[in-house]
Amino acid sequence: MLHIGVDLGGTNIAVGAVDENNRIVGRGRLKTDPTLPAEALAEDMAKAVKLAVEDAGAALIDAADIGVAAPGSVDPATGIVSYANNLPFRNTPLAALLTGLLGGLPCRLENDANAAAYGESLAGAGPGAESFVMITLGTGVGGGVVLNGQIYGGFNHAGAELGHMIMVKDGEACTCGNRGCFEAYASATALARQTRAAMEQHPESQLWRLSDGGRRVNGRTAFDGMRAGDETAKAVVEAYLDYLACGLTSLVNIFQPNCIAIGGGICNEGETLLAPLRERVRAADYNKLLPQRTRLCAAALGNDAGIIGAAGLYRLP
Amino acid sequence: MLHIGVDLGGTNIAVGAVDENNRIVGRGRLKTDPTLPAEALAEDMAKAVKLAVEDAGAALIDAADIGVAAPGSVDPATGIVSYANNLPFRNTPLAALLTGLLGGLPCRLENDANAAAYGESLAGAGPGAESFVMITLGTGVGGGVVLNGQIYGGFNHAGAELGHMIMVKDGEACTCGNRGCFEAYASATALARQTRAAMEQHPESQLWRLSDGGRRVNGRTAFDGMRAGDETAKAVVEAYLDYLACGLTSLVNIFQPNCIAIGGGICNEGETLLAPLRERVRAADYNKLLPQRTRLCAAALGNDAGIIGAAGLYRLP
Repeated sequence: MLHIGVDLGGTNIAVGAVDENNRIVGRGRLKTDPTLPAEALAEDMAKAVKLAVEDAGAALIDAADIGVAAPGSVDPATGIVSYANNLPFRNTPLAALLTGLLGGLPCRLENDANAAAYGESLAGAGPGAESFVMITLGTGVGGGVVLNGQIYGGFNHAGAELGHMIMVKDGEACTCGNRGCFEAYASATALARQTRAAMEQHPESQLWRLSDGGRRVNGRTAFDGMRAGDETAKAVVEAYLDYLACGLTSLVNIFQPNCIAIGGGICNEGETLLAPLRERVRAADYNKLLPQRTRLCAAALGNDAGIIGAAGLYRLP
Repeated sequence: MLHIGVDLGGTNIAVGAVDENNRIVGRGRLKTDPTLPAEALAEDMAKAVKLAVEDAGAALIDAADIGVAAPGSVDPATGIVSYANNLPFRNTPLAALLTGLLGGLPCRLENDANAAAYGESLAGAGPGAESFVMITLGTGVGGGVVLNGQIYGGFNHAGAELGHMIMVKDGEACTCGNRGCFEAYASATALARQTRAAMEQHPESQLWRLSDGGRRVNGRTAFDGMRAGDETAKAVVEAYLDYLACGLTSLVNIFQPNCIAIGGGICNEGETLLAPLRERVRAADYNKLLPQRTRLCAAALGNDAGIIGAAGLYRLP
């Protein structure tokens, strides 16, 4: 049987038809139109599901169930999205809508960061880990925690907001309304902001040339500058690594997970990112003398983590 | 049957004979002599156990098992204390020693902060909570996490070091060797330090009179000064509440537990402490719109939490 995973993003509806071994055997994709009402957006999602099933050379009757990774406040118990920034969901019974549109196929929902962590725990960086933590460095810092094979969400399923640990009390303003959150220092957005601030102070930096005169500054710019030998860029990267290591150290001290996986585009830096992070976290964490330390690695599934995690939701009780 | 709980502290060995309903029905207590070798300290622990059993009007044969809450690095799986600051344990098989000294009584070990959290989850602030977090504000900030009735310790049982979340990157030095830990701002030790610093800046403060000219400054001094109407004391308490609320907000965002209980002497302040903390955390946490919010309360068992948690360890798988 196939299990359908839908990763609903602000830009794309990405669907995979996934087999019992967590392999994507068919794909469907449509643009997300955030101006549509919820029902019409669900219809687009159903269309993308059908494309994925067809791409797998199968029919809807070959699918056992569907899982959806959605942004925002999601209640897996009821299948309701109570709220999503930039999407037309307000207490929307998305699971029931999709079940109705897809011939009664059972549907489960999960928060997108949790689904990505679950996908990595099933088939990416974390299989076999009793405790697994994932952070995704993107526009924000997404967090997901999988303990004993279950997604951890707290009593109201709103937990694991790891990007909103406060790391610098009274520090940078965060999108959540608070100040000093991990996200405000360690997201790709934050790195771009830090890069821009350093460029303003250093008109001589090669970062200007590398970013088309400051027009294209993103989470990669400082790393590119460092590789080009630029001192300003190197200082930005070093400071960013310090911030990221600080949050990771807290996560090690709190969870002592077998593994922390880092996802998001910045992970493409590979060992340039990971090696200095490991060094910093190992020097700082609370249990320096323990023989067994948390493994720190890059996420393995890239953009497919959400699809595979969503498709795997049927495994949960 | 009785279950014996031993809370091994740096000052006292406190033992309770505990019934099936988590009630202490007999007590034993001896001074901890940290200059003794491990075997002799275990003998003192065994003596205190016998005192508690006698105090309950029972005999050792009426006891089913023994649980020990010990400071330091404790491995419940092996019953070994690998290291404890100020106590003579270095890879000491403490559980086996006690079993040998107490006629074969099965013995389990747990870290003291975890045992206190477990005790509160069984019979204090948290019964029925699916997810329960406890912090103890003392010399340091102890942390314990109980999820689905199990003590959470991570893959190496060294987790839940909640006092070592970093809250002020590059901030105050912490005893763990790092900087800016929650503990370095929210422990009773930290509050006393903050109080002393404010007194130095304010020679006119009533805090001088209240602390015997600065000779007795502790975690209560600033609260006493505030009650006496002293402005310096009020400012110290307000700043301390901000630090504490900052750490609690992170814990809510990370765990969304049903309940966070606060233990330690500072809790005797009751609603003077808790009411402003609740207000601050509710204004700051990530999920301000959720109908269900984490309950923030004082620990209920006082110094008995460790005994009751230790005695209850037999309930764990």
